[in-house]
Amino acid sequence: MTRIWILGGGVIGTGWAIAYGAAGHEAVVIDPADDAAAVLGNAWAAAQPTLAEMGLLHAGSLAPAHATAPSGAGPVPDLVQECLPERLELKHQVLASLEASLPDDVMIASSSSGLMPDDIGACLKNPGRLVIAHPNNPPWIMPTVELCPSSGTPQARLDELAQFYTGLGKSVIRMRKPMIGHVVNRLQAALWREAIHLAAEGVVSLSDTERAISEGLAPRWALYGPSTIFHLAGGAGGMERFLEVLGPAFQSYFDDLGAPVLDQATADLLVCGMAQHDPRPVAEIATERNRKVPRALADIARIRAMEI
Amino acid sequence: MTRIWILGGGVIGTGWAIAYGAAGHEAVVIDPADDAAAVLGNAWAAAQPTLAEMGLLHAGSLAPAHATAPSGAGPVPDLVQECLPERLELKHQVLASLEASLPDDVMIASSSSGLMPDDIGACLKNPGRLVIAHPNNPPWIMPTVELCPSSGTPQARLDELAQFYTGLGKSVIRMRKPMIGHVVNRLQAALWREAIHLAAEGVVSLSDTERAISEGLAPRWALYGPSTIFHLAGGAGGMERFLEVLGPAFQSYFDDLGAPVLDQATADLLVCGMAQHDPRPVAEIATERNRKVPRALADIARIRAMEI
Repeated sequence: MTRIWILGGGVIGTGWAIAYGAAGHEAVVIDPADDAAAVLGNAWAAAQPTLAEMGLLHAGSLAPAHATAPSGAGPVPDLVQECLPERLELKHQVLASLEASLPDDVMIASSSSGLMPDDIGACLKNPGRLVIAHPNNPPWIMPTVELCPSSGTPQARLDELAQFYTGLGKSVIRMRKPMIGHVVNRLQAALWREAIHLAAEGVVSLSDTERAISEGLAPRWALYGPSTIFHLAGGAGGMERFLEVLGPAFQSYFDDLGAPVLDQATADLLVCGMAQHDPRPVAEIATERNRKVPRALADIARIRAMEI
Repeated sequence: MTRIWILGGGVIGTGWAIAYGAAGHEAVVIDPADDAAAVLGNAWAAAQPTLAEMGLLHAGSLAPAHATAPSGAGPVPDLVQECLPERLELKHQVLASLEASLPDDVMIASSSSGLMPDDIGACLKNPGRLVIAHPNNPPWIMPTVELCPSSGTPQARLDELAQFYTGLGKSVIRMRKPMIGHVVNRLQAALWREAIHLAAEGVVSLSDTERAISEGLAPRWALYGPSTIFHLAGGAGGMERFLEVLGPAFQSYFDDLGAPVLDQATADLLVCGMAQHDPRPVAEIATERNRKVPRALADIARIRAMEI
């Protein structure tokens, strides 16, 4: 697959276009907005230093193109990456109209974070061509892509897509069936919910949970996920031994985890907690993040690949 | 505080001794076991290369000493770090007997992960001198220390201890009141529970959740905790805007999170999942971890401190 149509030139569509272009694919962003071409061009230019620093610029990198409609997007694509707003009717309208002019074997990968693949594909004559390929944001920096079939997706086509995204340098998380929130957002929700609970109960400040995660847990998780950490904590007996010795303790933690609700009181706690934790303007933190997260990803990948 | 008695020469006691010794404190490990002195000496020697690599060897580093009982441990300490097995009666027996020979102003910091400070201190004439100072394992590598007062602990003494551990290079998480599992293990439990749920429901393999965390979420969490990540996702409007736009979605994830139980079926899933994810002997993974986690901590700390 070398030619990709991207439906929607928002943050995610633009981000995919940068990822595809950097890897040398012909990406065309289809978006009717007046400023879509300028937004895309600026984003591509702004991404160059980071792409170079991360070693993501392919020798044959191609600036992504723009079209206002599929009719102006040139030859039919090998893949469609759908990045439209999260409104089911809008997705249905655009995809149903697009399908008429799309060869039968072209898959449609939806970037949707919140909708189910069968619901999105319901508008199609061939709903099995619709899969979820949900990136972490921004898609050109973050490696994770959650790939989830709809009910009618042939296994072979799913395997091809997994191979395609892996070839793009992505870390493909293969969902065997859909679940609300996919995988990454559910894991984020689980961790965040307990951080909120601890702050809401007055046990620690929100800032202290941020530090406990950033300074303690995350650098270790970046090399070994939670199951591996506990496997190692079991010593020579591994996970089996860990569960014998510490299973009951962890069961008691499971049973005691909180279930705070995102109501106004929680919103106040979070807004106020963030103001204490990092009072800088969001734009300033975001600039720092854009410089530092790519470095962390690259350094960690280097450590992971290191021979010992 | 420059002279610390460490009660118990197990993994945690030895780990604390290395951390204190590296920082130039006089640490004495008190443990009646025949091989305690040899275990301590070997652990100190084995830690030297990593301590040097992490920049943790103080100019005045001191090899920790060993004593079989307090009577042989030399001058009274400035601080007692309790690292006995997690049996309340044993801790009570040792601490009650120790208190008689301890000056009134010497605090006892318990490394307990599972017991409550008031329960441990119940054996003391002055129970307020007992606090929790729970390290991440190993205490000489991992920066997090959870500090939790008992009911009678004077604020000023708690502040002194926070300053002491901070001076040791630790990232002190200040608990305002106790909660089962403290903070770090609760956060680990929350993330791990959802990873287990996703595998148990057949959505993804355990291996894929390990990768989703290690390759995607954790390198970012190592710089910005979950609340900051969502604050940034809100754009210029920060957390407030994030909650307006994505609060309902995250509430729906919260409501759908799983609550698997650590029974035999879960144990089978975890043991089997780990065998697929990383079939190497635990000792081999542990050797790799001991080389790589200190590097990740050092690299991330460097990136965090970087001026942009």
